This record gives sequence, structure tokens and C-alpha cells, in this order.
Amino acid sequence: MTSHEIASIVKGELHGSSDIMVDRVAEITRAGEGDLSFLDKASPGSTTSASCILVSLDFEHDALNVPAIIKVPEIHSSAVIALDAKIGAGVFIGAFCCVGESTSIGEGTQLRAGAKVGDKVSIGQNCVLHPNSFVDDGCSIGDNVILHSGVVIGADGFGYVRDKDRYVKFPQIGTVVIEDDVEIGANTCIDRGALGETQIGAGTKIDNLVQIAHNVQIGKRVVIAAQTGVSGSTIIEDDCVIGGQVGMGDHARVQSGAVIGSQAGVLPGKIVRRGVWWGTPVQPLDEYKRQNAHLKGIGRIKEDIAIIKKRLSEEKKK
Amino acid sequence: MTSHEIASIVKGELHGSSDIMVDRVAEITRAGEGDLSFLDKASPGSTTSASCILVSLDFEHDALNVPAIIKVPEIHSSAVIALDAKIGAGVFIGAFCCVGESTSIGEGTQLRAGAKVGDKVSIGQNCVLHPNSFVDDGCSIGDNVILHSGVVIGADGFGYVRDKDRYVKFPQIGTVVIEDDVEIGANTCIDRGALGETQIGAGTKIDNLVQIAHNVQIGKRVVIAAQTGVSGSTIIEDDCVIGGQVGMGDHARVQSGAVIGSQAGVLPGKIVRRGVWWGTPVQPLDEYKRQNAHLKGIGRIKEDIAIIKKRLSEEKKK
Amino acid sequence: MTSHEIASIVKGELHGSSDIMVDRVAEITRAGEGDLSFLDKASPGSTTSASCILVSLDFEHDALNVPAIIKVPEIHSSAVIALDAKIGAGVFIGAFCCVGESTSIGEGTQLRAGAKVGDKVSIGQNCVLHPNSFVDDGCSIGDNVILHSGVVIGADGFGYVRDKDRYVKFPQIGTVVIEDDVEIGANTCIDRGALGETQIGAGTKIDNLVQIAHNVQIGKRVVIAAQTGVSGSTIIEDDCVIGGQVGMGDHARVQSGAVIGSQAGVLPGKIVRRGVWWGTPVQPLDEYKRQNAHLKGIGRIKEDIAIIKKRLSEEKKK
Repeated sequence: MTSHEIASIVKGELHGSSDIMVDRVAEITRAGEGDLSFLDKASPGSTTSASCILVSLDFEHDALNVPAIIKVPEIHSSAVIALDAKIGAGVFIGAFCCVGESTSIGEGTQLRAGAKVGDKVSIGQNCVLHPNSFVDDGCSIGDNVILHSGVVIGADGFGYVRDKDRYVKFPQIGTVVIEDDVEIGANTCIDRGALGETQIGAGTKIDNLVQIAHNVQIGKRVVIAAQTGVSGSTIIEDDCVIGGQVGMGDHARVQSGAVIGSQAGVLPGKIVRRGVWWGTPVQPLDEYKRQNAHLKGIGRIKEDIAIIKKRLSEEKKK
Repeated sequence: MTSHEIASIVKGELHGSSDIMVDRVAEITRAGEGDLSFLDKASPGSTTSASCILVSLDFEHDALNVPAIIKVPEIHSSAVIALDAKIGAGVFIGAFCCVGESTSIGEGTQLRAGAKVGDKVSIGQNCVLHPNSFVDDGCSIGDNVILHSGVVIGADGFGYVRDKDRYVKFPQIGTVVIEDDVEIGANTCIDRGALGETQIGAGTKIDNLVQIAHNVQIGKRVVIAAQTGVSGSTIIEDDCVIGGQVGMGDHARVQSGAVIGSQAGVLPGKIVRRGVWWGTPVQPLDEYKRQNAHLKGIGRIKEDIAIIKKRLSEEKKK
Repeated sequence: MTSHEIASIVKGELHGSSDIMVDRVAEITRAGEGDLSFLDKASPGSTTSASCILVSLDFEHDALNVPAIIKVPEIHSSAVIALDAKIGAGVFIGAFCCVGESTSIGEGTQLRAGAKVGDKVSIGQNCVLHPNSFVDDGCSIGDNVILHSGVVIGADGFGYVRDKDRYVKFPQIGTVVIEDDVEIGANTCIDRGALGETQIGAGTKIDNLVQIAHNVQIGKRVVIAAQTGVSGSTIIEDDCVIGGQVGMGDHARVQSGAVIGSQAGVLPGKIVRRGVWWGTPVQPLDEYKRQNAHLKGIGRIKEDIAIIKKRLSEEKKK
């Protein structure tokens, strides 16, 4: 049953998406994905993973301290906006924001306090740039994109050429292109391409403190958990799920539908096929489990060998 | 002997805590915890882990470039403060700071340049919010809390529901509650609860670049080293010590007094009991060491087996 | 052949370093280090690792959205600069920047929007401090240093002494000294010394989201990839190369010329000699590979032992 159908049945108001599928009922603290639950009132410490929650019509949303995501359109007097920047209708620009030359900000987009956007940047409609986030010159952001606080889009990639007794910086003159409906977590960094682009496909969700290096190409609907790092020019195709603290070498390719467990390590140039992968270096989950079980059995193997040796030496004596 | 007793004996002035225990004397560069040491003058490169240091009364503290932690109370003219914000006595608010609506800042608290605090936030007394730190709407911070530069408190948790060909954002409408005497390192992120709270207990110390996900509950006097990540709804009880770059899955529980070594991995739902733990997946340190020793012995095992096989085939020939 | 010689041969203009060595020709998307390549026009998605690129004289550099690294000298009216700060000729100071008391900024240095510099800081010539970067009180930065967005230099190190039922903060009153030609990636943190200095040697390059703890000493021309963490008082000598997501315990020493692979773990106090190292705990790459091969062979060992046991028991029956 969908959230919309449930709302119709209970003659309630629907907040949120109308087509969330629900197939069970569960207690609020134990509910998970696909579960419908009920909340009397928000109490400190209450938490749920339910897909859908029924509350009474007089439910005090305020008790949840719901962050006021929708800001009244306003451009704060302290904001520094280039004369030739194009600012769409209904845009909110908070205190201490900067918008650079030849930059465009789409309708309904919010720049919260201290968000900074460089020159020749294109930012779509209905985006939210949280406080102290930064989009550097020449980058392009689609519609409905959320950049959390401290995000850095378009810093120079990490590329040097060793030249006798020093490193010479390889020019980092590409850009970053982020498509629609992308969300990027706090303090995550997405470097600009050396040449060409670093790309984040539509609908992709990236958690906090993630590192995306120059010229990485991430497909659509990819999920990347916190503190993962992706090295230069690696490709992650559509619909992959990457755990937290994963490290990927450069020029690797993660094929569509692959799932990589947390803390895994992908070697440079590696091709990771569809399926579930684990460990460093990554291997199919089944192999990883088998090997881990083997590992636990090494002590036993040593004992067996000691017994065999003893027996053989006894036979020899005979 | 306590630092206070030592100060009495040498008839010196005591700077810092009066009840630090000291039980040895050591040279300044080799001293560690519990050691008393002596410093003639601060020289470049000098470093110590001594618990207590004797210096002459004319010691030039300036030579140490001691950061001026205590700022003269002042509210900079550029700061943007909501009309209904409550600002306590002796508060310092630096340039380009923001304080949102219905927010309260306790006595003696310092917001250094560029620190930003959202709406309906409560910040206690004698806190320090370092430059460019950010506390989002509805979060609550106790007394004597230090947030280092770039800290993000209350960004949305990372929660989505897959719905056919897209991810739908699960509402992240809870808060973060940080109790008294907590210190949080630079660029660390603590996400708000989905519903309910993400909690950090009194006296807990968190290093730089740490990720704390939604609805995590961290007890009192917990120490977490740099770059560790804690997934959603995981509980870390009082007095745990967590190393650097540790990854914890969701819904795990680390019981009071557990110590987890650096780079360890805790699987989702895992219960980690009191004691010292190591490796991925975490195991008691003793087991980890034994297994590591076994691992180093695999080459030997292979040789043994080759010898045994040879001998058996020789016997067969006979 | 050098880039200069190539420019002479084609009678072209040379942009960039004149002494880059090139020894092959390769197609633009496949070229790597040491390759000469050719670019017709910049197209979305084009990317190369070529060391040298030939373009026509009418090549539209604008098509690459080259970031305007060189800003016209200017001090923005919103910047807050202490009266006694020394600002060199040709300095650019953007909107919402802060420069503290007794601080000096060298000739040609740029502080982009929102960059903040504390008191008694010395910053050399021709540096770039990207938006929202921060250098705290008393730190010292050489010439030609680049600090990317969100960098935090000089936050307190992570040091506490357990005192009965609480942690007492160990004073963090040292500084950070960064020598010439250093580049530091976005959201990287370099903590101040507890006493003495945290040091970064000339020509060293550090990627994004790296953690450098108090009193770490990093030599000259060291390269450190993203998300690596270095614990307190560890020494990395000249010309080392450290991969991404490496964790180093405290008081370790990495000797000159050592190369450490990504995700490796260096135990506290460990000495890592010249050569290539891998794994956790780090071991020479050869040993790591051998052990990994052994690991893959455990299943085989178990089978062998089962066969041997069967045979021995058969013999017994005889």
C-alpha cells in the first residue's frame, strides 16, 4: 500500500512523498524500511526508521524542532553579489554570502549564511547551499541539489609531477558538474577535473566527509556512505551502493549495481562487477566470508600438523 | 603527589588544574602522563607529554605564542543577531557571526569570527565556538563546550528510501544534544537525529574529522580519536576509548569501558563488551594477536605439509 | 625531450614549466605521466593525465573555465583587519575575511572570501588562502603556500589527562610552522603543537581531509593522499609518499624515501624504513603479497590436511 492510499483510508493529511510503499506495521522504535508506524508525541530520544508515520492532526510538529528548511525569499544586505550575477525569483541569500561574476542562481534556491559561490558558476532551481559551503569558479550544479555545511566543490585536484627535487603542480583547470537531485554531506570535498570534468549523476546521495578526486565519474542513483574516498578518474556506474570508509584507487571502475561493504579497499584499475564485495583488496562477499572462516581455523590447522608430525616420527621410530 | 601539593612545596603559582596526579620526574622531551618535568624556556620544536611542568616565575609565556583563548567581551558590529536571541553577560561574538531566532547564548560564551548558530538553538555558558563552526536549528549545547573550527552540528542525517528509480529522503527532523564539558575537533560532523536526538554525553572528547551519524548515542567521558565514523543509532556507553579511523556499523553497542583500537571495524548490530578490541571485524586483542601470529606462520605450515606429503609418498613407494 | 624543446620545435608558446620531461606520445584520454598529447578543443568530459599538451594558438582557454587564480589586488570593504596588521603590496583580501592583531601578510598573497587569520600569524608571499580556510593564532606560513577551502591550521591538539571521573585538557599552546611551497587540500586539519611546533617541510603536498596531529614533523617534498591521519609526535622524513586513508600511530618514524600504500596502518612507535610498505600493521610490500597469496591458499591447506589424516587413519587400520 502507498503512503497516499494510507492517507486516504485514515482521511489524514499527507506530508512527504505520496508513493512510498508500506507493507508492514511496526512499533516506532523497531520499525524499519517499508514499515508503517505511529507516533503519539515526539519525546527526547525517540527514533525510528519507519517509512511512514501516523500522527494525530494536532501533532505538535514544533516539538520535533523541525528545521525551517524553507526560508522566506530575501537577500541579506551583507551579501556580496556580483553586478552581472543572475539571481532567480524567490531566491534566499543569507548573511555573509558571496556570489561571483557571471554566476547564475536558479529560482527558489537558498544560500544560507556564509555560503560562497565563485565566478561563472551555474546553480539550478530549488537548491540549498548550507552555511559555509563553497562552490568554486566554473562549476555547475543542477536543480534540487543540497550541499551541506562545509562542502567544498571544485577545489584543485591533487596532481603533481616530480621534477628533480620538487613537485610541480599539474594544472587543475577542469570543472565539477553535479546533476539534479544530488545531496552532498557536510564537509565532503569534490575536486575539479584536471582537464574535463568531475561528474556526479542525477539522484546520487553522498554522505559526510567523503573525498571525490579529480575526474571521477559517478553515475545516477549512487549512494556513498561517510568518509569514503574515491581516487582520480575512477568510474562508479549507476545504482551502486558504497559503504563508509571505503578507499578506491585511481582508474578503477565499479560496474552498475555493485555493492561495496564498509572499509573495503579497491585497487587502482580494478573492475568491480555487479554483486556484493567486501574486504581489502575487495573480493566477492562469499569469498571474503569463506576466507575469514578459514582464518579462524588456522590455529586448528597448526594443531593438526603437530599431531601428524608426531605420529609420523613415532612410526619412523618403529 | 598532586599539582597543588607540588606548587605548595616550590612556593610557586599553579596554572591549570590543582589535582593532577604526578608520580615521576622526567626530562621534558621524554616525559609522559603522570610525569613532572621542567622547562627552561620554550624553544622551537620543544614538545612534552608531561602532566605537570615547572617553569621559573619570569617564564615568558609569550614565547609559547599562547593563543589568547579569553577574548574581551564584545559583539562585533558585523555580526547578525536575531532580535529575539538571548545573549548572556560577557559573551564575545566576533566578526561575521550569525545568531538565529529564539536562540540563547549563555554567559561568557565566545563565538569566534564566522561561527554561525541557527534558530531555536541553546548554547550554554563558557563555550567556545571557533571560526566557521556551525550549529544548525534546534540543537542544544551544554556548558564549557568547545567546538573547533569547521565543526558542523545538526546537518541532516543520511537516510533515504529507494522508490523505484530514485531515492526519497527520509525526513531528518530530530536534533543534536551535546552535554557539558564536551570538546569536538575541527571539521567533525554530528548529524541531527532522523527523529529524536543524536546525543553526546558530558565530558566526552572527540577529535578532528570524525563522523557521528543520526541518532547515535555517546555516553559520558568517551574519547574518540580522529577520522572515526559511527553509523546511525549506534550506542557508545560511558568511559569507552575509541581509536582513530575506526568504522562502526549501525545499531551497534559498545559497552561501558570498552577500548577499540585504531582502524578497527565494528559490524552493524555488534555488541562490543568491556575489554580491548582490535581489527576488522573487531575481536578481543588477544585473539587478534594470536591470529596475526598464526598468519605469519602460514608459510611454515605450507612447508610442513609439503614435507609430510613427500614422506607419505616415499612410504607408499616402499 | 623537455617541454621547452617541444615548444621550440613546434614554434609554439609554452605555458607552464619548461623542464617537464616527455618520452612518449599518447591519445589525450589515455595519456599518462611522461606523455605528450594533443587537444583540439576542450569538450565536456575530456580528461587527461598527459604531462604536456599541444593546442592550437587560437585555443579557447576560456572553454576550460580556467579558474582565475590571479585576483586583482584589492581589499574588500567588508574585511576586518587589525590596525597593527602588516599587509604587503599587491595583497588581495576578499569579502568577510579577518586578519588579526600583529599579523603579517606577505606581498602578492590572496585571502579569498571568508578566509580568516588569527593574531600573531605570519603569512609569506604569494600564498593563496581559499574561502573559509582558517589559520589560528601564532602560526607561521611560508611563501607560495596554498591552503584550500575549509583548511584548519592550528586547532588545539587532542590531549587529555584522565583525572578520576573526568578528562583534563592538556594545554595546547604550541604552534604550526608551514614552510614554503606547501599545498594543503580542502578540509584538512593541522593541529598546533601541545608545546613546540607541528611542522610541515618545504615542498610538501597534502591532499583533502587529512588529519595531522599535534607535534607531528613532516619533512620536505612529502606527498600525503586524502583522508590519511597522522597521530601525535610522529615524524615523516623527507621525500616520503603516503597513500590515502593511511593511519599512523603516535611517535612513529617514517624514514626518508619510504612509500606507504593506501589504507595501511602504522603502529605507535614503529620505524618504517626506506622501501615500499603495505597493509595493517605495515609490512614490506613483498611480504604483504606473499602473505596474501598464502591466505588465498588456506582452503587448499585444509584439503591437504584432510587427505593426510584420512591416509594416516587408513594406514593405522592396516
